[in-house]
Amino acid sequence: MTPKPIDILKERLHEVAHLGATIALLHWDQEVNMPAKGADARASAIAYLSAIVHNKFLAINEDGLLDKLKRGLEASKIRGNDAVIVAETWRNYEREKKLPEAFIKELAETSSKSQTVWAEARAKNDFGLWLPWLEKIVKLKRREAEYVGYQDSPYDALIDTYEPGMTTAETTVVLNDLKDFLVPFLQKIKASKTKIDTKKILGQFPLDKQMAFNNLIAEKMGFDLGAGRIDKSVHPFSTSFHSTDVRMTTRYRKNDVLYSIGSTIHETGHSLYEQNLPAEFFGTPLAEAVSLGIHESQSRLWENNIGRSLPFWKYFYPKLQKEFPAPFKKLKLEEFYKIINKIEPSFIRTEADEATYNLHIILRFELEREIIEGSLELKDLPKIWNAKMKEYLGVKVPNNKLGILQDVHWSGGDFGYFATYSLGNLYAAQFYNQMRQAIPQIDKKIAKGNFAEINNWLKQHIHRHGKTYRAGDLVKKVTGEPLNSRYFIDYLEAKYKKIYG
Amino acid sequence: MTPKPIDILKERLHEVAHLGATIALLHWDQEVNMPAKGADARASAIAYLSAIVHNKFLAINEDGLLDKLKRGLEASKIRGNDAVIVAETWRNYEREKKLPEAFIKELAETSSKSQTVWAEARAKNDFGLWLPWLEKIVKLKRREAEYVGYQDSPYDALIDTYEPGMTTAETTVVLNDLKDFLVPFLQKIKASKTKIDTKKILGQFPLDKQMAFNNLIAEKMGFDLGAGRIDKSVHPFSTSFHSTDVRMTTRYRKNDVLYSIGSTIHETGHSLYEQNLPAEFFGTPLAEAVSLGIHESQSRLWENNIGRSLPFWKYFYPKLQKEFPAPFKKLKLEEFYKIINKIEPSFIRTEADEATYNLHIILRFELEREIIEGSLELKDLPKIWNAKMKEYLGVKVPNNKLGILQDVHWSGGDFGYFATYSLGNLYAAQFYNQMRQAIPQIDKKIAKGNFAEINNWLKQHIHRHGKTYRAGDLVKKVTGEPLNSRYFIDYLEAKYKKIYG
Repeated sequence: MTPKPIDILKERLHEVAHLGATIALLHWDQEVNMPAKGADARASAIAYLSAIVHNKFLAINEDGLLDKLKRGLEASKIRGNDAVIVAETWRNYEREKKLPEAFIKELAETSSKSQTVWAEARAKNDFGLWLPWLEKIVKLKRREAEYVGYQDSPYDALIDTYEPGMTTAETTVVLNDLKDFLVPFLQKIKASKTKIDTKKILGQFPLDKQMAFNNLIAEKMGFDLGAGRIDKSVHPFSTSFHSTDVRMTTRYRKNDVLYSIGSTIHETGHSLYEQNLPAEFFGTPLAEAVSLGIHESQSRLWENNIGRSLPFWKYFYPKLQKEFPAPFKKLKLEEFYKIINKIEPSFIRTEADEATYNLHIILRFELEREIIEGSLELKDLPKIWNAKMKEYLGVKVPNNKLGILQDVHWSGGDFGYFATYSLGNLYAAQFYNQMRQAIPQIDKKIAKGNFAEINNWLKQHIHRHGKTYRAGDLVKKVTGEPLNSRYFIDYLEAKYKKIYG
Repeated sequence: MTPKPIDILKERLHEVAHLGATIALLHWDQEVNMPAKGADARASAIAYLSAIVHNKFLAINEDGLLDKLKRGLEASKIRGNDAVIVAETWRNYEREKKLPEAFIKELAETSSKSQTVWAEARAKNDFGLWLPWLEKIVKLKRREAEYVGYQDSPYDALIDTYEPGMTTAETTVVLNDLKDFLVPFLQKIKASKTKIDTKKILGQFPLDKQMAFNNLIAEKMGFDLGAGRIDKSVHPFSTSFHSTDVRMTTRYRKNDVLYSIGSTIHETGHSLYEQNLPAEFFGTPLAEAVSLGIHESQSRLWENNIGRSLPFWKYFYPKLQKEFPAPFKKLKLEEFYKIINKIEPSFIRTEADEATYNLHIILRFELEREIIEGSLELKDLPKIWNAKMKEYLGVKVPNNKLGILQDVHWSGGDFGYFATYSLGNLYAAQFYNQMRQAIPQIDKKIAKGNFAEINNWLKQHIHRHGKTYRAGDLVKKVTGEPLNSRYFIDYLEAKYKKIYG
């Protein structure tokens, strides 16, 4: 019996996905295990395999299979799940075939090497060391935008990779709205008489005990350690080779256990999404996340809406106190809760509180838009970065390690990515508001460490659909209305009124 | 300028090698990191990539490039390094093109899954669980022998993969000679009045301290930790992605630090070979080891000839005593030396002493020859295994975990591999004899922890040549005569006369 065209497509996508997962392993290993001198060989391996994946993906249509399926879709002969597979695959195919093989290879090789140089530059606090690599990357990303094409800004072509359908103009509006709220909000907080001493949670926390505690939290949240693992890396990240092998990393400070806990809860949010994607559709858009913004909504919902809530710590705080009597035994839960929610302008995005975090994003969004549009000199970046930090957050950046060199994204060619973090905060607040109405006595359940209903709600309403819905449609379907920043703003106002009076 | 044909070949081999290294990473990760549920997805990824590597390798000749170079070689127009590259590549190409793509894929997928089942079967001591997978693997390996072709025994076709040019008949002769020496030798040892109590080196050794000590030994031996790493796995192994990224694993017992030290020294011997292969020829036979037997000579030379010698421990024993006062502080070096050299029949090959080890190999060699020739029933393997253990070593195997299930090789399809371990012992003794004449006061240097000259000798005489010489020719070139088991036998007799009187 001849297989159906849609099944042939699925088999081809299956191979591409496994090869793509292998590239993900090469990257994961690079961050977690690879010895320093292996960097050049690794870059070559990634480049060769990236070119193969690119060609294999384009080859799904070498006999016109995808064209044929696309015509079936347009004639409404293909429906349901198959329609999603064909439509989204077609979308990726259209984009991918515009990129020449040599370009894909050059980008992969350059960004892999650039990440290695970035790590060294960051360690040495030496922007000049990284600048030539940043220049190469930016040139390549601008070429990518030209290959892909765009209507208004070349930056549109890059955002679209991460947040399908979103434009520079729309993102600018949303982020400006957020900035308009946050700047006066931050002023009010600064004026508050409530003083919070974060030093009280510092201590000495052996690495292995921290790791064990993080594994405990992740597992309790629902992460299946039989289908994933948690490791150490410079910059925390999550990656997935398949829903049965999902890996996250975190980073550690010996004197601050909350530093690793925060990033673990965040990455676990991402990883639960990946573990819950339907394995039976592996390789197809039905087993892929909607967008980075929706992905980020899962990490933020866990990290902030749940992970920085009082009920969450009603459950975990006694365990933390037992595991680390110093300094927690003498510190009351209520005070601990205020400390982990302190709002304070700082230098490092990944360590920022849930409010000022968005100002870090807005800064990056504004810079990268200009970088890609070509309206600033790359060598001036540290100066411009520091000026904006002063303007938005009121802080004076002491060095590039705490400034422009802090994030891995640009070194890896990820331009158009940052905005999705703040979109994630907005989606998260709106989803969480809906979930709280759907799950009776949710706070009591959280306080008992019972996360099953939360996981199930997220799985049913978001994870299991894969890419069936675009981000905007999913939000409407789940919450009954389009994305509305009001939910995030209301959440911040209600929460911080109690903390700061 | 058009690149020269030989340079085009090198570029093609370069890509194949990086993709091959990526498969090696998939395997390494499977043993070291992969969560249990990820096994199926991993098997698929390995299978897809294996098929691609197979096709890419065959495609080096799709435009007749290799044919053309082969003709140049035959006309003596290609010489020196280039001649080695063309001749050895041709040899691999001839073998590879006989294997159908579907076969390669099936073998890769089956052996990956079989290894996972084997690990479970071993843990559960359940041969029946693994048997159906062993049957699949054997069927595939016999098919492989038919595809490749052979003169006398299908087993020839498999040995040739690991030890180019070696036949079943020749190996049988060498191993029978060894058996003829070892059986009476073991009788004499058993009759000796010298009693050695190995329990004296047992204690409590925390894992992290063991790991640190092993890293110290490996580094001191010359292993570059900036171009490699040491991890933990069920079965110790070494693998290389490039001479700048060489990885070994070891395994640990909490009560026996020598258990991990022995395997670390062994794997470091392999890894030094890989780190010393010339990076500038990466991808070509000039950056590949001669054969598994020669590879094993490097691990054995370090593990036994050097690593179980008195001078070696004159240097390391005080460090071991300092790191682990219990039980070593009260144990004299001379007694420690006897303990780590005790000859005693045992169940597990990888834990055997350097003499009885070879009887373990002879047993496996005899079995796998029959397995591949089809002259025994696989379901009878445990029975036959146990009978031979009784006959050669005089021990009664209590269960399959300590018997037929102990080695990973067959589960991964590695038939024809085991004999190379004993060949390695013979090569090692002959090389070491030569090296001792070339390096003045070598024992004093070892006793001072000065391994630079040894490393340099191995690099100059063996490592840097890659596959320039066949094993037999290399031995002649380095030692002035063909492989001669007398060196190994003399070494054992001299050493153990002192220990057992």
